[in-house]
Amino acid sequence: MNSQQFREAAHAAIEEIIEYNETLPTRRVLSAVTPGYLAPLLPSSAPTCPEPFSQIQPDISAHIMPGLTHWQHPNFMAFFPATTSYPSMLAELYSAAFTAPAFNWLCSPAVTELETVVLDWVAQMLGLPEEFLSKGEGGGVIQGTASEAIAVCMVAARERVLGRMLDKEGLKDGTEEWEDRKGELRGRLVALGSEQAHSSTQKGAIIAGTRYRSVPAPRQDGFRMTGKNLRDVLERCKREGKVPYYLTVSLGTTSTCAVDEFEEIAEVLKEWPDVWVHVDAAYAGAALVLPEYQHLTKAFVHFDSFDMNMHKWLLTNFDASCLFVRRRHDLTSALSITPSYLRNTFSDSGLVTDYRDWQIPLGRRFRALKIWFVLRSYGIDGLQSYIRNHIELGELFHSLVKGRPDLFSVLTGPAFALTVITVVPKRPQQMRNASKPDPRHEAFTNDFTPDAEKQALLDANAVTKEVYELVNSRGEIFITSGVVDGTYTIRIVSANANTEEKYIRRAFEILVETAEEVLGKGEANGSAS
Amino acid sequence: MNSQQFREAAHAAIEEIIEYNETLPTRRVLSAVTPGYLAPLLPSSAPTCPEPFSQIQPDISAHIMPGLTHWQHPNFMAFFPATTSYPSMLAELYSAAFTAPAFNWLCSPAVTELETVVLDWVAQMLGLPEEFLSKGEGGGVIQGTASEAIAVCMVAARERVLGRMLDKEGLKDGTEEWEDRKGELRGRLVALGSEQAHSSTQKGAIIAGTRYRSVPAPRQDGFRMTGKNLRDVLERCKREGKVPYYLTVSLGTTSTCAVDEFEEIAEVLKEWPDVWVHVDAAYAGAALVLPEYQHLTKAFVHFDSFDMNMHKWLLTNFDASCLFVRRRHDLTSALSITPSYLRNTFSDSGLVTDYRDWQIPLGRRFRALKIWFVLRSYGIDGLQSYIRNHIELGELFHSLVKGRPDLFSVLTGPAFALTVITVVPKRPQQMRNASKPDPRHEAFTNDFTPDAEKQALLDANAVTKEVYELVNSRGEIFITSGVVDGTYTIRIVSANANTEEKYIRRAFEILVETAEEVLGKGEANGSAS
Repeated sequence: MNSQQFREAAHAAIEEIIEYNETLPTRRVLSAVTPGYLAPLLPSSAPTCPEPFSQIQPDISAHIMPGLTHWQHPNFMAFFPATTSYPSMLAELYSAAFTAPAFNWLCSPAVTELETVVLDWVAQMLGLPEEFLSKGEGGGVIQGTASEAIAVCMVAARERVLGRMLDKEGLKDGTEEWEDRKGELRGRLVALGSEQAHSSTQKGAIIAGTRYRSVPAPRQDGFRMTGKNLRDVLERCKREGKVPYYLTVSLGTTSTCAVDEFEEIAEVLKEWPDVWVHVDAAYAGAALVLPEYQHLTKAFVHFDSFDMNMHKWLLTNFDASCLFVRRRHDLTSALSITPSYLRNTFSDSGLVTDYRDWQIPLGRRFRALKIWFVLRSYGIDGLQSYIRNHIELGELFHSLVKGRPDLFSVLTGPAFALTVITVVPKRPQQMRNASKPDPRHEAFTNDFTPDAEKQALLDANAVTKEVYELVNSRGEIFITSGVVDGTYTIRIVSANANTEEKYIRRAFEILVETAEEVLGKGEANGSAS
Repeated sequence: MNSQQFREAAHAAIEEIIEYNETLPTRRVLSAVTPGYLAPLLPSSAPTCPEPFSQIQPDISAHIMPGLTHWQHPNFMAFFPATTSYPSMLAELYSAAFTAPAFNWLCSPAVTELETVVLDWVAQMLGLPEEFLSKGEGGGVIQGTASEAIAVCMVAARERVLGRMLDKEGLKDGTEEWEDRKGELRGRLVALGSEQAHSSTQKGAIIAGTRYRSVPAPRQDGFRMTGKNLRDVLERCKREGKVPYYLTVSLGTTSTCAVDEFEEIAEVLKEWPDVWVHVDAAYAGAALVLPEYQHLTKAFVHFDSFDMNMHKWLLTNFDASCLFVRRRHDLTSALSITPSYLRNTFSDSGLVTDYRDWQIPLGRRFRALKIWFVLRSYGIDGLQSYIRNHIELGELFHSLVKGRPDLFSVLTGPAFALTVITVVPKRPQQMRNASKPDPRHEAFTNDFTPDAEKQALLDANAVTKEVYELVNSRGEIFITSGVVDGTYTIRIVSANANTEEKYIRRAFEILVETAEEVLGKGEANGSAS
């Protein structure tokens, strides 16, 4: 493809992307394809001869778009959002043009230096303690995802605690005795997260090869981890001879956007200085752009790391997970290995940052560009209005739900534009199938006991699930469900870049109509029986 | 930024990218900025108010481009290449527009299904055994980097061997006893790679929390790992009560593009069925598009995984590391965790692939698009001519070097467009500084002993290093050095997408001129002394 062909192809692609965005509301938000739809539409091997772009492009609309779930669709209210924006796309295009596996400073100084600059901008914008800025001992690094950030911190935490323990025992780094003892001690390590922490903490513990224990965060505590519950688990670990070395605290849990009790937790952990505390603020951390949320960051000065995904709520296309650490040395001392072919004067001088030592992979993309473009294109004011609008839409949705107590009950929220609801069952007899095990929801069925006092919960779970499944199967809006402390819930998030009040009102209408249908059907069945 | 503003901004960005590519040869390949150049040029915090693109774009040429090391420059002959192409950039643009953290099939079926299709195309194109295709028990997945692929395989290998050992001992998964014993056994595990394997194997072992041992691959074996040397290490591990569980074999080592003795290694490992063998073909694996190289894949049927980066030699912008496994169950059984909010009918049915269970992060980008666009835009024929051309340019460079035995000696190659050379010293007296320790090259200085028989080597190392440093400091071409078995070497790679014969000939001229200058200076000094 020569320059002129690229120019023409790019113009055509840009028109298609504009048209895609402008017609989003007319599309089905959740793809309706069935598994295996694509392979029969494509050749079974790569073509022998080159194809012109005029032959490739039509396959985007013909074969790819029908298989997309449109995360930018205004009716996408599932999971947490994954947003993008035109400035972000342009930066990604430049990044692809300047492609480099910029594993050290010399490999492309701008890639490293812009990352340091914009992550300082982000840290300031979120009101993080200045310990997390690059000017002192801390700093930020862009990871691919929040789960990768957790795995990185957990490996660093594991090496940090083992190093301290081995030092105390007076063993010499690298000796056979040191390695043997390290293996023994590693077997005693335990990573912790609350019951409501994202599953990536548990996966991180698998990657790091350590045990994992969860800290209760029950309904009566608002699904928050408290200091007391944490202390109980820490003390149990100690009694059992285990060594807690890592803890995820959440600013916005996945199920309900709960915020753990940071101050209490920091207080408890004064007695446990070897526990690395990581703040997982993957989604809700974006709300820290608002001054009214920044009081939440006060306790972070006691914690080791913080992560927020620009690619969730902040208009930056995937991937842009911003990880900040209080002591960058904790990462580099665990993850740095420098063979001769990666050595150079600049790295060895210690004057430059080599981000390869802050992450699992060696190579890295030029991801700072899109954060830079987004921050400049929107400005802090623009991002504040944007987030505030979503939070207000969440409050609107919540008020609508509260207006129909006959149909819905609010479990949690509105919190960070997320409201978690259940459907209120009308008559016990419509719930006959409630205790029928559903193989798709193991956690759900496990929570069921034939205990009579739980009948009300079973009833609510059954209608909530039925409403949820009907809504998604009809495809006008896409929402997700969850099971929290045995309660089957529907989650509605109003933080999509294209969300507007009319879509939130329509989503509520759909929920009302579907709930009335399900509950009415129950009533009709009830009368017939 | 509205549609019209995006259209205008995108057109401007495209013109800038075209101009960038067309003027590449006139730029300095290696950035000349000094550490910390960027921060003083930018504001110290994000702007409060939005800035238009017309204000942002000029900063690309003013502040970013001077800090880029141009990996696409025809005079970039360092490391291994990182290529891109116009079709790849267009796909990246679509990917940014369709952004989604497509962690399971339902989150965007096209993202998963296109990945399965194009990775089957890649596997066929490279002549991999059909066990690595998705139709059986294997399949491919796109990782960010080859180092990430290694970390993933190592964690899966660790879990696989521990599972087998614990099963044999009759322990029940998940019990306290099982966890305790798992910790004990984990401390005995050893990951292996040859001395010449990429450092990411050693880093992978840190991440996985296991020991690492290297297998000798000395000069007399052509820097290849042989069956015999592997057997020696395996047996030593056994004698010491260690359990080897993972091995990286290389198809194209970083220093010399050596290919390990796959058939011998497979034969030895028949007695070690618990060792996961991963083929790291990050760069040179691309040459398997040529039928004349596909005999190398014959032994892979005995191995567990294979990885090749489309983003190195195959015109796809970073990141696109293609990992293939023989049994996908080995990955998913180690890495799968499914909480309620990630459950859905399709995933639970087992009919679909959820690639989150094949990798460390949860979310993932739509990276298959760019591989699809590249394979179709070039066709297999196009990629074959492209790779063959680079291999021939490598042969040309090698023949030029061989024509000046007075100046250069060839250590290895041409192999996969890489030639590794040393400079031939003229007179012993110019080598006075040879044994002076250089803090930047620990591996280098460690290899030095004051042993007289090594004087010739010291002399050669000193002039080679001087020539290398002069060439790079002058900045017309960018090359890398390496230390192999105590020998300081210069690596020249002719596999850049913009490489042409004239650039290779000019690079040789520069090397000749610089070597003559350095050696002449030595002579002059010699006469003067």
